Amino acid sequence: MAETDGGSAVLFPADRLAFGGGGSAGGAVHRSENELFDCEVEGRIPPDFAGTFYRVGPDPQYPKPAAYERDIPFDGEGHVSMFRIAGGHVDYRSRYVRTQRWKAQHAARRSLFGMYRNPLTDDPSVKGLSRGTANTQVIFHHGRLMALKEDSPPVALDPLTLETTDDLYTFGGGLKGETFTAHPKLDPHTGELIGFGYEATGLGSNDVEVFSADRDGRVIWSAWIKVPYAGMVHDFAVTENFIAFLIIPLVTDVEGLKSGGIHFIWDSTLPSWLGVMRRGGDGKDLRWFKGPTWMATHVMGAWNEGDRLFIDMDGAPGNQFAFFPNRHETFNPMNQLGHITRMTVDLSGNAESYDSEILYPGVVGVLSRQDDRYHTMPYRTGVMTSYGPQGSSWLLFDHAKGRHWRWSPGTDSLVNEACFVPRRAGAAEGDGYLVGVVHRMAERRSDLVLLDTDDIEAGPVATVKMPYRIVGQVHGFWVSAEQLGGVRS
Amino acid sequence: MAETDGGSAVLFPADRLAFGGGGSAGGAVHRSENELFDCEVEGRIPPDFAGTFYRVGPDPQYPKPAAYERDIPFDGEGHVSMFRIAGGHVDYRSRYVRTQRWKAQHAARRSLFGMYRNPLTDDPSVKGLSRGTANTQVIFHHGRLMALKEDSPPVALDPLTLETTDDLYTFGGGLKGETFTAHPKLDPHTGELIGFGYEATGLGSNDVEVFSADRDGRVIWSAWIKVPYAGMVHDFAVTENFIAFLIIPLVTDVEGLKSGGIHFIWDSTLPSWLGVMRRGGDGKDLRWFKGPTWMATHVMGAWNEGDRLFIDMDGAPGNQFAFFPNRHETFNPMNQLGHITRMTVDLSGNAESYDSEILYPGVVGVLSRQDDRYHTMPYRTGVMTSYGPQGSSWLLFDHAKGRHWRWSPGTDSLVNEACFVPRRAGAAEGDGYLVGVVHRMAERRSDLVLLDTDDIEAGPVATVKMPYRIVGQVHGFWVSAEQLGGVRS
Repeated sequence: MAETDGGSAVLFPADRLAFGGGGSAGGAVHRSENELFDCEVEGRIPPDFAGTFYRVGPDPQYPKPAAYERDIPFDGEGHVSMFRIAGGHVDYRSRYVRTQRWKAQHAARRSLFGMYRNPLTDDPSVKGLSRGTANTQVIFHHGRLMALKEDSPPVALDPLTLETTDDLYTFGGGLKGETFTAHPKLDPHTGELIGFGYEATGLGSNDVEVFSADRDGRVIWSAWIKVPYAGMVHDFAVTENFIAFLIIPLVTDVEGLKSGGIHFIWDSTLPSWLGVMRRGGDGKDLRWFKGPTWMATHVMGAWNEGDRLFIDMDGAPGNQFAFFPNRHETFNPMNQLGHITRMTVDLSGNAESYDSEILYPGVVGVLSRQDDRYHTMPYRTGVMTSYGPQGSSWLLFDHAKGRHWRWSPGTDSLVNEACFVPRRAGAAEGDGYLVGVVHRMAERRSDLVLLDTDDIEAGPVATVKMPYRIVGQVHGFWVSAEQLGGVRS
Repeated sequence: MAETDGGSAVLFPADRLAFGGGGSAGGAVHRSENELFDCEVEGRIPPDFAGTFYRVGPDPQYPKPAAYERDIPFDGEGHVSMFRIAGGHVDYRSRYVRTQRWKAQHAARRSLFGMYRNPLTDDPSVKGLSRGTANTQVIFHHGRLMALKEDSPPVALDPLTLETTDDLYTFGGGLKGETFTAHPKLDPHTGELIGFGYEATGLGSNDVEVFSADRDGRVIWSAWIKVPYAGMVHDFAVTENFIAFLIIPLVTDVEGLKSGGIHFIWDSTLPSWLGVMRRGGDGKDLRWFKGPTWMATHVMGAWNEGDRLFIDMDGAPGNQFAFFPNRHETFNPMNQLGHITRMTVDLSGNAESYDSEILYPGVVGVLSRQDDRYHTMPYRTGVMTSYGPQGSSWLLFDHAKGRHWRWSPGTDSLVNEACFVPRRAGAAEGDGYLVGVVHRMAERRSDLVLLDTDDIEAGPVATVKMPYRIVGQVHGFWVSAEQLGGVRS
């Protein structure tokens, strides 16, 4: 029961545009930690399909006080879920990440942290606590599941139970900065985890920490660099020899923060910059290449051929997130449509800008992924998720053929991000399954869906049917049974 | 993960008439153990409304093999839920009861127990295990929460966590028979729990064990009696001086059991019998009073004035459960409509039959309850739940005034049983709240609803809004914060 009496009852606002607006009845919040052993399965899960599919997304723990009621959905507390799959059976579990923030609010039975990434709006009682929501991605490395939010260090979870084991995980002290990306890369050759943190020395700072941890989680390399301006650096590119950061004009709004606003604002007057540095160096070789004003969020794949660097991201000419304000113009939904865009730069010459080209001009999508075994390497398999007037869908790309395939669950359903799962250890690139959650809006239920990459248009080979709408997500992450084999709870 | 590979995937039949038919998509099964801290509340929970509302119902753990696919809903495994309420805040949790049966099936990842109360249909691997599903009622006495199914001993649960603490609880050995009712009575004067078990010495036996346990759970009195014929004895009546059993012709179908059927069959050729015995005696004073062929399930209230005994039950002229077969005729839904019926018998004379009278002829309902503080005593407050063409509703009766009031959530909603909660310790009879769950069918969600007994027709004073349809129930049970105060997990 309550350690403290939080006073008034919990009720999210009716206004759908408010934080958690519509509440549980409207599906805007979930808040329930659920466990379903041996889910119902339609179709057949391949007998050697074995591992755990993790997901995480923001799920408002408490309504915000009136002053912060216009906070954005990204500020919901991280709620992790997992489907454990083996022998044709599936077990489901979801748990809030026990962040420092979650624990403080749980004890107080109310919201204590104000606006999205604005510590100036916090209740005085939480001074010194991490603001991190751990709501963006979960990854598995050196036996640890880490829930990530790019404004704070990882939170470590037990991969078998989802219990939080460390509410501020710093790789044994190896992470020196205040932040850590939600999109570290796993080098398939070396087993390294390569990560970074931006605004690493405080609110609005342009300091970035870059580092690499070995298979055992020991930080074996790090460097500090500065970016041209402070703003969102959601993802980055790691190739065999290089690390690259795309700096986009979703800038940190220092003045806005002081007046109680959210963290970012879109400044269309600024160019983008692609920064490239050698892996393993001290960062002094970092070079910046200028590019157009555009927004790009996720890296599909990246590699280098000698000094030629290739980076594929989904991006758009304008601000892609309507809830981040624009400094100079009104939001234009046509300018938010994402296309796979290939950036290239030749490091051997004196180029001062990077080139970019849209790969599939007719194809709109977001949440780019690849066969994760091909991080850092030349790749052919890409995955995207798409939302549009015809409903939502998953897209599978084969760059070698220049082809793509689409599966849509119909207009009464809404997909979360699709992830690629190899058919088995050692399977060829792109040979396996797309796995992801589909929300059946009319039924207020969710399914986990498996598509065979041989023919995603044929529809699911297996559907895991949940009795209710499960918690939403930003990203998902697959860990095979082999990878999890050595983990003991 | 699976200790054993259960082979084929879990999938409930599409046929809605089958066990778990329609599965989770159809709402026929829930199966998910959920926890929601600080539920959303519309309206205002009175600040001194403090305690826990427990519920339990059948929730199929696994689909049945084809041979037993026509099993009845009552055979689902017991799933307990609780709303813990204090200071205007509400925490929700649900857990399957870890019965011996549940644990064996969980390990095997499949159904091992065949038809409803037919041990002849079980998988050989479960011989010797309790078949009990603990799915009918939860009660709190001597610091223990007990989940009850009338074919087996109680299962003890931690009232604060719902963890199972004893999968076969026998009151420290005091319960000698094989069975225990789901409707024991709590004597408000003595603090005793008075219970019984029918078919107490085996399948189809006419032996009944009656006993009383004191405030500490010690069995301080017991007696063995025999009933005129073996059949369902779902409830019983306890007054200050007497204990009474109504024997109805929903008889144990011994031949049907041998051919793989369910336990009961309706035999309209048999009369009913009301058996009355003194509390505290050896049972030799038991007398049987003959009555009409009818069915009655739940006792609303019972008392004696000297040798005159009064028992109110909801009942109907015919079989009330369509899924129990009739031996001699087809099921007649008009004969299942329940009315509050008062049985009276004068024990001072030589009567050989009991009298009965319908109290509110125009009012149809089931699941009779009362202000539980008036068990054994003259009472005026009754509660019923009603299902009909106009939708479902709750009914509140004041026998002193001969009046009743009704609240209905509308035809798109379905109520579970209503329970009475006193306004505070020492409140007058019937002064308080009706509390219960309403399933919002169109929204596929559930609410916990509080009505003030001063005016239930005014609608909810508070509504606890759940993000999904919560598990169903048969019965519910309120335990005040004072009563729970001494319990430590």
